[in-house]
Amino acid sequence: MSLVRCSHSRATIPASAAGMVNNKHNAVLVETTMTTLPPPGSPDIDIARAVKPWPIFEVAQRKLGIAHHALIPYGHYKAKLDLAQIETKTKLGKLVLVTAITPTPAGEGKTTTSIGLTDALNAIGINASVCLREPSLGPCFGVKGGAAGGGRAQAIPMEDLNLHFNGDFHAITSAHNLLAALIDNHIHWGNELNLDPRRITWRRVMDMNDRALRNTLVGLGGPAHGQPRESGFDITVASEIMAILCLAEDRKDLQKRLGNIIIGRNRDNQPVTARELGAEGAMTVLLKEAIQPNLIQTLEHNPALIHGGPFANIAHGCNSVMATRTAMALSDVVVTEAGFGADLGAEKFIDIKCRMSGLMPDAVVLVCTVRALKMQGGVPKADLDAINVEAVIEGSSNLSRHIKNLQQFGLTPLVAINRFPTDDDKELAAIKEVCLSLGAPIEEAQHWAEGGLGAKAVAEGVKAMLDGEKPDVKFLYDNALPIDDKIRTVATKLYGASDVQFNIAAQKQLDEIQALGFGDLPICIAKTPYSFSADPTLLGAPSDHVLPVRELRLMAGAGFVVAICGDVMTMPGLPRKPAALSISLDENGEIVGLF
Amino acid sequence: MSLVRCSHSRATIPASAAGMVNNKHNAVLVETTMTTLPPPGSPDIDIARAVKPWPIFEVAQRKLGIAHHALIPYGHYKAKLDLAQIETKTKLGKLVLVTAITPTPAGEGKTTTSIGLTDALNAIGINASVCLREPSLGPCFGVKGGAAGGGRAQAIPMEDLNLHFNGDFHAITSAHNLLAALIDNHIHWGNELNLDPRRITWRRVMDMNDRALRNTLVGLGGPAHGQPRESGFDITVASEIMAILCLAEDRKDLQKRLGNIIIGRNRDNQPVTARELGAEGAMTVLLKEAIQPNLIQTLEHNPALIHGGPFANIAHGCNSVMATRTAMALSDVVVTEAGFGADLGAEKFIDIKCRMSGLMPDAVVLVCTVRALKMQGGVPKADLDAINVEAVIEGSSNLSRHIKNLQQFGLTPLVAINRFPTDDDKELAAIKEVCLSLGAPIEEAQHWAEGGLGAKAVAEGVKAMLDGEKPDVKFLYDNALPIDDKIRTVATKLYGASDVQFNIAAQKQLDEIQALGFGDLPICIAKTPYSFSADPTLLGAPSDHVLPVRELRLMAGAGFVVAICGDVMTMPGLPRKPAALSISLDENGEIVGLF
Repeated sequence: MSLVRCSHSRATIPASAAGMVNNKHNAVLVETTMTTLPPPGSPDIDIARAVKPWPIFEVAQRKLGIAHHALIPYGHYKAKLDLAQIETKTKLGKLVLVTAITPTPAGEGKTTTSIGLTDALNAIGINASVCLREPSLGPCFGVKGGAAGGGRAQAIPMEDLNLHFNGDFHAITSAHNLLAALIDNHIHWGNELNLDPRRITWRRVMDMNDRALRNTLVGLGGPAHGQPRESGFDITVASEIMAILCLAEDRKDLQKRLGNIIIGRNRDNQPVTARELGAEGAMTVLLKEAIQPNLIQTLEHNPALIHGGPFANIAHGCNSVMATRTAMALSDVVVTEAGFGADLGAEKFIDIKCRMSGLMPDAVVLVCTVRALKMQGGVPKADLDAINVEAVIEGSSNLSRHIKNLQQFGLTPLVAINRFPTDDDKELAAIKEVCLSLGAPIEEAQHWAEGGLGAKAVAEGVKAMLDGEKPDVKFLYDNALPIDDKIRTVATKLYGASDVQFNIAAQKQLDEIQALGFGDLPICIAKTPYSFSADPTLLGAPSDHVLPVRELRLMAGAGFVVAICGDVMTMPGLPRKPAALSISLDENGEIVGLF
Repeated sequence: MSLVRCSHSRATIPASAAGMVNNKHNAVLVETTMTTLPPPGSPDIDIARAVKPWPIFEVAQRKLGIAHHALIPYGHYKAKLDLAQIETKTKLGKLVLVTAITPTPAGEGKTTTSIGLTDALNAIGINASVCLREPSLGPCFGVKGGAAGGGRAQAIPMEDLNLHFNGDFHAITSAHNLLAALIDNHIHWGNELNLDPRRITWRRVMDMNDRALRNTLVGLGGPAHGQPRESGFDITVASEIMAILCLAEDRKDLQKRLGNIIIGRNRDNQPVTARELGAEGAMTVLLKEAIQPNLIQTLEHNPALIHGGPFANIAHGCNSVMATRTAMALSDVVVTEAGFGADLGAEKFIDIKCRMSGLMPDAVVLVCTVRALKMQGGVPKADLDAINVEAVIEGSSNLSRHIKNLQQFGLTPLVAINRFPTDDDKELAAIKEVCLSLGAPIEEAQHWAEGGLGAKAVAEGVKAMLDGEKPDVKFLYDNALPIDDKIRTVATKLYGASDVQFNIAAQKQLDEIQALGFGDLPICIAKTPYSFSADPTLLGAPSDHVLPVRELRLMAGAGFVVAICGDVMTMPGLPRKPAALSISLDENGEIVGLF
């Protein structure tokens, strides 16, 4: 099938690709609207606005079988799901993880592939939905660009998604800062728990890029205004509460995890929890709505559950367990993604999210581009347009490593080449050879230009994998191993490291965490996403490097131990010319300059 | 008509009082549901939960004639109004202001009277809606108690209203803090505008009671993390943006006002605006939804437009102009309230909100209680149950002053006595005498115990006033007067002051503001609400006191000059035992401990 160009160089998406084929719940409702979209390469916002969204009740009912009363609308095109009201299938649908090679400035297109694949699966008759993370508000005002896919593979309404959306991040901000206020208030009124003001580790958060808040003194101004102490703010997505929300099974589990948060130490240097302060109940109340998954739609009217957005470095970088589980209970196939490359994203997805939730992937798609492999092979960004088969072969070491890594989990990925016009057939052939030598199927995708139709080959490939034997997914390490051994396992098995080196502070923290009885938590490695090593300049598939662990952070509420192996920025700053300065409403009340 | 008690001592509200009588838009839809409510004195939350709310689409359609597509739902029982989509009547409905005598710890019941009166007006066949301020989230976690009315005069869903509601305050927080981030970012990247970091007056905000944030140092940690400087946080309701949102006529006016905000001074000591930073466009985008009025319902299913919540001290203390205007365009009568007593609330309502918007009140209700007058007459709270006619007469000086004050605006109020079981007929007779001597009608109200039915006499009284001649409302002062004369006018005409005294700092600020060309703005006096004077212990109707003006603050965006005459707290703290510690979700996911 090919796209039909019309006279005004606008393209038409066939109804079959517009997500109206498979409809087990409302077979009578097939429509034949043809959507006219601006041509590929038009601004994402123009494409998004050219599509008339379905009322969200229709998406919910026709695509997921959700009744009116179980949907909590937020406007006409967004909703939250009232989980208590949803009748789900006893048998869960299949789960497809979309991950990627090591990210480069050339861009790989993991989110567009997740969305395009979902639209394509629906186009070939499979009832599928996509689960993604919510974008953060703060960065929208820094560097231009939203996070709702792109081209003809987008989730809409993208303006709402990139701004306040359904209020989840604001609720997390409130819950986080309530705990902070309760801590300072406790110290102010006599400090019964004997908290050490020098050892409060719970900071405050704001969903804003604001470097001036990274390091602050609070409680100044005299005895009526609290106890002076050093503190600071992180961006909301870096809050432990974000990770907790995304790993919680339900409200009860949420409250328990919130209570487990360690806020700092007392004067005996013992950890103190949010529960000891009595904070977890009120925090849960603030998150009552935020814990419900959000529903929007793709450009082709397929269900997109967008919920939670933890960092992929100091947290696990996946959307919520509740959204994934709900989608699996309502769809036959669920496509989801994990942050950064497969070394970080897929590893944490499996070793943290899947292990905690019991949800296991049935297939993995590994997104790759010719251009990215050229960069991994040493070509600078300016020279990517030139054909360079040698560089592709050289850079394919990165792809090979990721494929072999995934095979260690028992998952051979389908490699999806996100195709660009500059890609040459000889370059593609080189990549195919690599994949086939490792037994990994490979397909090309052009969803960015063509919508779901463009990812049909990937969808057929995924279907074939799902029709085959269910993979026997293995975790990379046993939680019972000591923390250092768990880190060493990931570093040597996935990163190609020869060893792990703990500095003195990290070694001390390691001993403390083990002594406190948290040694059996999974680990969450925070390192540069731009290399298998801790050095972002080492491209391809570096070996025999040593992973330096500088700091361990116990996230007792989220339930993992973060191993920090490099600089981690938890509060971004704005650039010299922030995008905010060109954002405005036009005469019609439409947003300009945001995307 | 009297309440029918059923066997389980639960009371029944007659259908006529349940808001189903007047329905010009959907006359066919009259229902006869009888709502069984817990008895008066039950916790507000129990009463609220005993009422089955109408779907908000029904309230909008049946009571306001709003079509489905013009309503933006936030769940099933809350909505925002899409003003662009609403067809309004060319003739505006009438406006009734509910104000009160000087507040005391005994409680007067301004919000319950506003709601009860609205229900009563509907019960006697008048199409009426109520406009109120949104409560702030932060204080809910301090001292127990929400702000959605009480007893049988409530707006529901009260849990939502008191928590995140429709996200307006979070949006204001984001817009405010974006401007703050842009200021520090501007200084960080070279400070082209030559801002004086010592003279930045724009602080940050958070919707939380957090005293430790009152005074902070930001920008610590070295050159990568900004310029160190003193700053601090206010609670979100104290943000100038809150006042701006409530005074803006539309999005365009909002953007203009945001641009006018003065964020501090440059090194030449000249004021710098948000517009010079280029911030107002992005701020407006963040407030795109927040500027739309919110719709919920009273217990008797009448429309409640709840929108905006500026402080009544450093701001004007009224709900938004857009909500009031919209309600007036959709209802025959709109009941609204203003913060604190009539000396502050009604004055600012008329001299600021009405003057700017052109909307004028057609009648005023002055809420008063026997108990409050006893306190004004010197009786301590513990002795309020005892009959004390002398104290009531003594305290009536307060009531008289408020009546006479309102008459200076050309408005003789209807005095609504919010009746308590301990009130004695002799005490009431004394109050009636005072009112009648001033030509003010007086009626008793029992809406707290009886719902709309209990405020029927007040509603009939209001109807009689509205049926009479339209009052000729006069402002208290001419905007063209110098600022000090405007303050002196309010102090001498309303507060009984003999003069106004500016301290040296305030005098300097006064000269600066006049020199900058802002001398013709209206003034907003921030003083204790507990006395006509600046001394909260001076009860009754003190005279010949001197009003001390300590500071003037130019709110160039909101469009008024704040005169600070006493301590003003813009960031509350939490008490020793915060309400947060007893708030939680129960087994059914219902909130406990919040109200």
